Amino acid sequence: MHSKASYATASGLKESIRAARGEQKSQLVVRNIHWLDVFTGVFRQGSIAVHNGFIVGVVADEMAPDASGPYEGEVTVDGAGAYLVPGFIDSHVHIESSLMTPLRFQQAVLPCGTTAVIWDPHEIANVKGKSGIRWALDASEGLDLDVFVMVPSCVPSTTPAMGLETSGATLFAEDLREFVDHPRILGLAEMMNFPGLLFGDDDVTAKLLMYGKKRLDGHCPGLTGKDLNAYGVAGIHSCHESTSLGEAAEKLSKGIHVLIREGSCAKDADRLLPLINAYTSATVGLCSDDRNPADIAEGGHISCIIEKSLRLGQKPEDIFRAASWAPARMYGLRDRGAIAPGYRADFCLVAPKGHQSRSAGARVAAWTEGFEVKAVYKSGRQVDAEGLRRVASEAGDKGDQARDLLTQGKNLNLPLPTSQTFLVPARPGSQKSVKVRVIGVRPGQILTDHLQAECASDGLEILANPPMDILKISVLERHHGTGQVMTAFVKGFGLKSGAIATSINHDSHNVIVVGTTDELMARAVNNLCEIDGGIVVVAADGSSEALPLAIGGLMTNDEPAAVTEKLRGLKKLAEQCGCVLDEPFLQLSFLALPVIPALKITDKGLVDVSEFKIVSVQL
Amino acid sequence: MHSKASYATASGLKESIRAARGEQKSQLVVRNIHWLDVFTGVFRQGSIAVHNGFIVGVVADEMAPDASGPYEGEVTVDGAGAYLVPGFIDSHVHIESSLMTPLRFQQAVLPCGTTAVIWDPHEIANVKGKSGIRWALDASEGLDLDVFVMVPSCVPSTTPAMGLETSGATLFAEDLREFVDHPRILGLAEMMNFPGLLFGDDDVTAKLLMYGKKRLDGHCPGLTGKDLNAYGVAGIHSCHESTSLGEAAEKLSKGIHVLIREGSCAKDADRLLPLINAYTSATVGLCSDDRNPADIAEGGHISCIIEKSLRLGQKPEDIFRAASWAPARMYGLRDRGAIAPGYRADFCLVAPKGHQSRSAGARVAAWTEGFEVKAVYKSGRQVDAEGLRRVASEAGDKGDQARDLLTQGKNLNLPLPTSQTFLVPARPGSQKSVKVRVIGVRPGQILTDHLQAECASDGLEILANPPMDILKISVLERHHGTGQVMTAFVKGFGLKSGAIATSINHDSHNVIVVGTTDELMARAVNNLCEIDGGIVVVAADGSSEALPLAIGGLMTNDEPAAVTEKLRGLKKLAEQCGCVLDEPFLQLSFLALPVIPALKITDKGLVDVSEFKIVSVQL
Repeated sequence: MHSKASYATASGLKESIRAARGEQKSQLVVRNIHWLDVFTGVFRQGSIAVHNGFIVGVVADEMAPDASGPYEGEVTVDGAGAYLVPGFIDSHVHIESSLMTPLRFQQAVLPCGTTAVIWDPHEIANVKGKSGIRWALDASEGLDLDVFVMVPSCVPSTTPAMGLETSGATLFAEDLREFVDHPRILGLAEMMNFPGLLFGDDDVTAKLLMYGKKRLDGHCPGLTGKDLNAYGVAGIHSCHESTSLGEAAEKLSKGIHVLIREGSCAKDADRLLPLINAYTSATVGLCSDDRNPADIAEGGHISCIIEKSLRLGQKPEDIFRAASWAPARMYGLRDRGAIAPGYRADFCLVAPKGHQSRSAGARVAAWTEGFEVKAVYKSGRQVDAEGLRRVASEAGDKGDQARDLLTQGKNLNLPLPTSQTFLVPARPGSQKSVKVRVIGVRPGQILTDHLQAECASDGLEILANPPMDILKISVLERHHGTGQVMTAFVKGFGLKSGAIATSINHDSHNVIVVGTTDELMARAVNNLCEIDGGIVVVAADGSSEALPLAIGGLMTNDEPAAVTEKLRGLKKLAEQCGCVLDEPFLQLSFLALPVIPALKITDKGLVDVSEFKIVSVQL
Repeated sequence: MHSKASYATASGLKESIRAARGEQKSQLVVRNIHWLDVFTGVFRQGSIAVHNGFIVGVVADEMAPDASGPYEGEVTVDGAGAYLVPGFIDSHVHIESSLMTPLRFQQAVLPCGTTAVIWDPHEIANVKGKSGIRWALDASEGLDLDVFVMVPSCVPSTTPAMGLETSGATLFAEDLREFVDHPRILGLAEMMNFPGLLFGDDDVTAKLLMYGKKRLDGHCPGLTGKDLNAYGVAGIHSCHESTSLGEAAEKLSKGIHVLIREGSCAKDADRLLPLINAYTSATVGLCSDDRNPADIAEGGHISCIIEKSLRLGQKPEDIFRAASWAPARMYGLRDRGAIAPGYRADFCLVAPKGHQSRSAGARVAAWTEGFEVKAVYKSGRQVDAEGLRRVASEAGDKGDQARDLLTQGKNLNLPLPTSQTFLVPARPGSQKSVKVRVIGVRPGQILTDHLQAECASDGLEILANPPMDILKISVLERHHGTGQVMTAFVKGFGLKSGAIATSINHDSHNVIVVGTTDELMARAVNNLCEIDGGIVVVAADGSSEALPLAIGGLMTNDEPAAVTEKLRGLKKLAEQCGCVLDEPFLQLSFLALPVIPALKITDKGLVDVSEFKIVSVQL
C-alpha cells in the first residue's frame, strides 16, 4: 500500500501500462486544467488520465506533444481551467474530537478535499485500551478516506505510578506490540511524555525502541536547545505543538518536521504559516489535531489552513505541496501526494476566489482572496457527499456494531449520583468563611489559573458562591465502577443557574460536571447516564439538551449536520444559563487534564500541576 | 538501518539522549562552522555534537542559547568558519567501472566526500550471475563507505531468446527472488529493457512485481509522452539517462526523479544542472554511473558535479541538498542526508575556493570559483585515506578470497587464439575487392555509425586495410569455453601497428580485441589470457602493457594509484601505436553492446541494432 503503484497481479500492471500508452481508453480524463507538478513546484497546463484508481498519464501542453494525440477517456471532464492538486493529508488528527465515527468523519472531510488522515486514536484508547485501538482500526478499514493510524504512546497522560487519576486503560509498551506490524499503522503517536523520554523512563524507552523502524510522532510544546536535540536523537520526526514561528523554526532546523495545526481550540496557522516557502514546502505538513464538527462544517478542514496561507499571499504551489507531498514523504506514503503516473488518483479541482473588477467589470480570480474546492476525487472517483451519507447511515458494522465491540456493557459505569454526592466537606472546626483553592478558567485556553477564594461554610460542608461565579466542579470515575468522586470549585463559566455534564474529559474521559446547585449537577449526571455518555445541559426551569455519544461516550454515528445542530442547541441553553465561554464543553473537558498547568481536577483530587501533586480544596 | 536513529538497545538510546542533553561529553564537537539545515535550505552558524556515530546535537548561534552552555566534546574540532554539509550520495554507480573492488573504491571516493553509494553490480552479474551479486553484497559489507545495492534487472542486455550474444549469465525474475529481502538491497536496478516493460514482457513484468515494494530504478534515454507515463505507471521512480534539459524536465514532472550524471564517458551535468532550484533540490539526485579511477583521482567523484553547479552560480544550499538529502529521501534512507540530531554523522567540511582581491589584496572566497573538501567524516570518524589504503591492502577476504568465491576456475575460459582465429572468410566467388560493413567509432560516444568500405580479398579471406584505418575487430566468447569467435571491421581507432584487447566488454564482457594484424591480435589475446583478464596493449616492436583485473576480468584489488598509473601506461602505448581516441579502452568496451545503435559486434555476429538482427560482414 505504501509503494508507488505496487501491483498485485501482472494483468493489473499490464492493463495500467496499456491505458498509460493510450492503447485502451482510460476510465477518466480530466482536461483543460493546471495540474500541480510537485516535483518542480509549478502548475502545468494540460490534462491527466486516470485508470483503476491511479493516475496513468499526465500531459503538459508546453512539452513535446505525443504523436498519438490526447488521451481518450470513458468519461472526460472539462476542468474549465481549474487547478488540479493532490488530495490534502491531515498529518495529525484525533477523529474522536469530531465527535463522529470514521464513517461520519469522512462524510464531513472528504468534500473539503482531505483524502487521507493520520489518526491518533488516543481518546478511545484512554477509555477502552487495546480494544479501543482495535476498534479504531476496524472502524477505519476500507473507507473511501484513507485512514492511517499511529498507536497512542501515552495512555493515560500521566504515569500510573503517580496516582493522579483513574483512566479507562493503561497501555504499557508490551500492550502496543500487537499493533507494530499492522499495515495501516505508521508508527507511534505523539510522545507527550517528553520528560519521560529525556529522563530515560523505561517504558517510554521500550515504546521508542519497539516502534523505532516506523515513525515516531512528537508533541513537545516549548522544548528547545539541548532537550530538543535529545528529543530528535530519540528518533522523533514531527511536532504539531509549536505556537511561535521561532519555536517552529528551531524544531524544523533540528529535523523535527513541523505540522502546522488549526484546530477548534488550538489555532497556530496565522503564526506559523510564514515558515512555508519553496524549501519547506517539502518538510512542513498541515494538521487539524482536534476540530469539532461545527468548525469543519463552517470553516473546512485542512482546506482552512490552505485558505489562510493563500490570503497571506503565499504561493499556491507551496501550500498545496505542504498539504500533500510533504506529509506523504514524511510518513513514507509513496503512493500519494503527487499528480504523476503511478500515484493514487486522489486529487482536488480548486480555483482561486474572485472579485468584481472595478475597471473592467469582470470577475478577477486571485489566490489572495482564498480558494474554493470545486470537486474532489478519491482513487479516481468523484466524491459524492450524499453517497457517503447513505453509506454511513446504513453501515451498522462501522457504527452500532462497533459499539458492541467496544462496550461489553455501558459506557458509563458509575453509581447514580444524588445531590449528596457533591458535598464538599469542611475541615472539622472550620469557621463560617473558609479559604479554598479555585480553578480559574481562561477563555480560549486549556491552561488554568490557580486561584483562591473565600466560601461560606456551616462547619460540615463548604458552599459554592454562584453570584460570585464560584461554582462546584466534580469528576466522577466512570470506567471501573469505583464510585470515586472529587468535587472542588471553579471560576469562569459564569453560569447563573444550571449545570453542564460530559463524558468527554481529556485524557481519561471520566464524567465531569459543573453547576450552580448540587441538585442540578446530580440531574445533569443522571441525564448523562441515561444517554450513556455525551454532553448534557440542564437548566433550573427543567429544560435540558443532550447530545448522546454512544461510542465510548465520545463519538456518535449520527449525521454530522444533526450533531452540529445538537451542539448548537446545547450551547444556546448553556448561554441561557448564563455561561460566558465561547466553547463551554471544550473548556470543561480539558479541566481534568493533569499535565497542563496550573490547577486541574481528576477523580482522585485537585492537582497542582506545577508540583504534580494532589492538594486540598480547603486552605 | 534505514530508520532515523533506530537503536538496538535501550542503553544505546539512553546514552545518546544523555549526550544530546549535555549530561555527558560527546565524542566529537565541531564548532565554528556553518552547518546546512536541509529542512529549511539555509546555512546556520554554530556547532554540532557527535556521539556513537550519530549527530546528537546541532546549535545555531542565532537561536535562543541553551542555559547549559555549549556542548563539550572529548575531541573538539575548530571548523574555522567552514561549511558543514551532509556526506554526498552517489545515487547510481557501477563500481566495476572504477576497475576497483569496493574496498579500493571507498579508498578513492570517501576522501572526495562520498559517504554512501547505490551500486548496481550489473557488470559482475553479467559475468557471474547470482554468484556475482552475492559477491557484490559480500565485498561491500561492513565497509566505511555505505554501499547499498540494486539488483541488476537486465542480465544480459538483450533478451536471450533473441540469440544476439553469449553472456556469462542470464537472470530471470525467479533468479532475483533470493535478494528481495536483503536489508542493503533497495530495489531493482536500471530497467534498461523499457521496450519489454512497455510491451508487457512476462519476465520484465515479474521482476517489477517482485520488487514493487522496494525502489525500481529506470533507464530510458529519450523516452517521452505516453510511453514515459507508462514507464512511471509501472512504478519506475528514477532515470539517470537524460541528456537534455527538456528531457529531464519532462521526466521529473512525471515523477521520475532525475539523477544528474557525470561519468567518464557520459557527461550530462552542464546541460542538466539548470534543473536544480529550491524545489528540485528535494527531487533531483546526482550520480557517477561509470567513472574510471583516473577521473576520480583527478576530478573527484560526486564532488565534481557539485563543483560544476557552483561554477554555474547555483546556490550551494541547493546543490548540497541535491547531493545528500534528496537521494536519501528517494531511496528511503531515513538515517542520512541531513545535519540534525538522530542522523548518521556522515558529513564534509567544505569551503568555497578563493581568489586574490585586486583592490584589497586579500583572499576572497566565492562559491562561483568552486569548492574544496577540507575533511570528510563517516559515522563520526574523520576519513583517513592512509587507513583506508591499509585496510584494503590487508583485506584478503574482500579482495583475493572474494576472487575464489567468484571464479571456481579462470576468468577467461577460451581456446588460445592463433592468427588463424581472426580470418574473415570471403564469400565463395568473391572478387579482389569486396564491399564490407564497417563499425564506425564516434569519438566520445558509445553510438556507432553503420559504414561500408571496399576491402581487398584473395577469394578466401577478406583483408583489413590499416592505412585506411579499416582494422579487424573480434569478439571471443570467454565464459563457457565454446570457442565462439566473430571477426569484422572497425574504423576510428587509427592504430598504425599494434593491438588492444580487453575482457571489459559491455554488457556480456566477452573478450574484445582490435589490431592491425592477426598476429598482434592473437598475441594481445594470449597476453590477456595469461593475466586472466584485464586490458592489454601490444606494439609491433614487441613492447606491451597490461592491467590485470583478477576479479571477473573486471576489477582489481590493487592500489587506485597503481591502477591509474597502469591505465596511463596502456593509454600511452596505444597512442604510440597511433590510436587517436581519448578513451580507447572505454570505446572498445562498448562496441559489443547490442542495444546501442547502429552497428555492433558480439561473439554471435555483427548486429544491426536498428533491426536487432545479425547481418553479414560482406555485402
